Amino acid sequence: MNAVIPDTFAAWRAARQAEVEQALSRFVRADAPAGLGEAMRYAVLDGGKRLRPLLVLATCEAVGGRADAALRAACAVELIHAYSLVHDDMPCMDNDVLRRGKPTVHVRFGEAQALLAGDALQALAFELLVPGDATLPDAMSARLCRLLALAAGADGMAGGQAVDLASVGIALDRPALEAMHRRKTGALLQASVTMGAATASPAPAVQAALADYGAHLGLAFQVVDDILDVTADSATLGKTAGKDAAADKPTFVSLMGLAEAQAYADAVLAQAHAALERSGLPHTATLHALADWVGQRRS
Amino acid sequence: MNAVIPDTFAAWRAARQAEVEQALSRFVRADAPAGLGEAMRYAVLDGGKRLRPLLVLATCEAVGGRADAALRAACAVELIHAYSLVHDDMPCMDNDVLRRGKPTVHVRFGEAQALLAGDALQALAFELLVPGDATLPDAMSARLCRLLALAAGADGMAGGQAVDLASVGIALDRPALEAMHRRKTGALLQASVTMGAATASPAPAVQAALADYGAHLGLAFQVVDDILDVTADSATLGKTAGKDAAADKPTFVSLMGLAEAQAYADAVLAQAHAALERSGLPHTATLHALADWVGQRRS
Repeated sequence: MNAVIPDTFAAWRAARQAEVEQALSRFVRADAPAGLGEAMRYAVLDGGKRLRPLLVLATCEAVGGRADAALRAACAVELIHAYSLVHDDMPCMDNDVLRRGKPTVHVRFGEAQALLAGDALQALAFELLVPGDATLPDAMSARLCRLLALAAGADGMAGGQAVDLASVGIALDRPALEAMHRRKTGALLQASVTMGAATASPAPAVQAALADYGAHLGLAFQVVDDILDVTADSATLGKTAGKDAAADKPTFVSLMGLAEAQAYADAVLAQAHAALERSGLPHTATLHALADWVGQRRS
Repeated sequence: MNAVIPDTFAAWRAARQAEVEQALSRFVRADAPAGLGEAMRYAVLDGGKRLRPLLVLATCEAVGGRADAALRAACAVELIHAYSLVHDDMPCMDNDVLRRGKPTVHVRFGEAQALLAGDALQALAFELLVPGDATLPDAMSARLCRLLALAAGADGMAGGQAVDLASVGIALDRPALEAMHRRKTGALLQASVTMGAATASPAPAVQAALADYGAHLGLAFQVVDDILDVTADSATLGKTAGKDAAADKPTFVSLMGLAEAQAYADAVLAQAHAALERSGLPHTATLHALADWVGQRRS
């Protein structure tokens, strides 16, 4: 746990990030009409750690799944993530002007175009999962669509955002805070793992262990996010720091203090590592390294 | 053409509308967190002519497709339509306060909740197409997801809305106006037909004829919409009348005048009827009646 990230992981990450970037650039076409393609590409390309795509790809490698399906699933998950950021940044939501160190999409292209770009990115995510040329088995396409839809919708990300909106100024306890984050950020992070697994047909116990890994990694990600919101500066984060506290939103830090939040992040990551061990899969080094990476990230 | 709509069609329509209404009420659950379910249901239930679902169901009946798949596809298409209205009505888009005779979603629930409700409705549309309990063949689920994603995204509805936004005050010629509407409203209306067809496996020539029917019906729908925008009042329409002219948006009426627009609607509907004849399908009376209904609608 928390071992120094090996060079091999850094090399894997760089190679896979480049692969994802190229695929996203191919899939998100510039020729969508009236500037929509430009806004969509601005929202998606050249930014972000690509944690979700990396989770899809690493899980695919761990289960020996189909690489072509995994690359599409990786891009689909990232498109859902990207669209949620575009809508989240809009004035009626978080009203944020800075994202990944650049003006947010609505600042750059206007609110109407940002709204449409987000909507079109969500549709494109599902389109990617069903290539239409029979290159992926229908059963795999269907399962990937279902996992993504559940993670993105009212029982997942969108529902979590609704809870988040309703929680401003309210003293949530830890179970309530975790339930909110399980939906808001956890569902899509976990889906990155379960979709990676769905590029093969691992045994149910393996699927369950991987889903558990994804759930704990998702929770740890959010705890670390709350820690960074108070400890990092905006330049490092590439987005506005301190905004949760400013918005009077409940966070793990406001709930348990900085030191205990850090200890909690470590404990949750330990559970993610333990779930991976339980999977019995032989090649999980990259997934272990991704969990460490989540714990050690500084932005 | 333009025959009096027979009682049998009115009875069919009422029965199917009730079936769709019940299914939507079952699928769009009230228990989504923090009021999100309530906003989603408000956006979807108890309103609208359900033209798109009726097209799905009638096409399914014409090709002898699976009724369970068609009902899910009908609801999925309607959810996409409903979410587009929610987002379209928002202040950054059309800024409309009245829809189907009720306050729009953002007026009733706030802009942030309206944005999230729309987002969640889109995800739910895809979820419906992949039940997850193996009741639908995977190939059918996958094909339905692809057709819906293409119709909703940058090459379809969202792209058409982007063109629409960019067209305010611009003198589009008829080909440009038709290209815009082919995406904005035509793609989803056509998808209602092609998704209905995808509940069976009709021959390619039949699929092509049905797709052509859907394309012409979609165009006619928009021409009639433009006519109603200048000839109907807000109470009858259930939405703000005259808003296209007020917004200086190009319409078929502004382009060709009222009388010629009416003649054009009739001519396009005749092509829809002709495409149905070309399909060679024996049971197309309901689809013919739906085309007549589009031509004769007053709201």
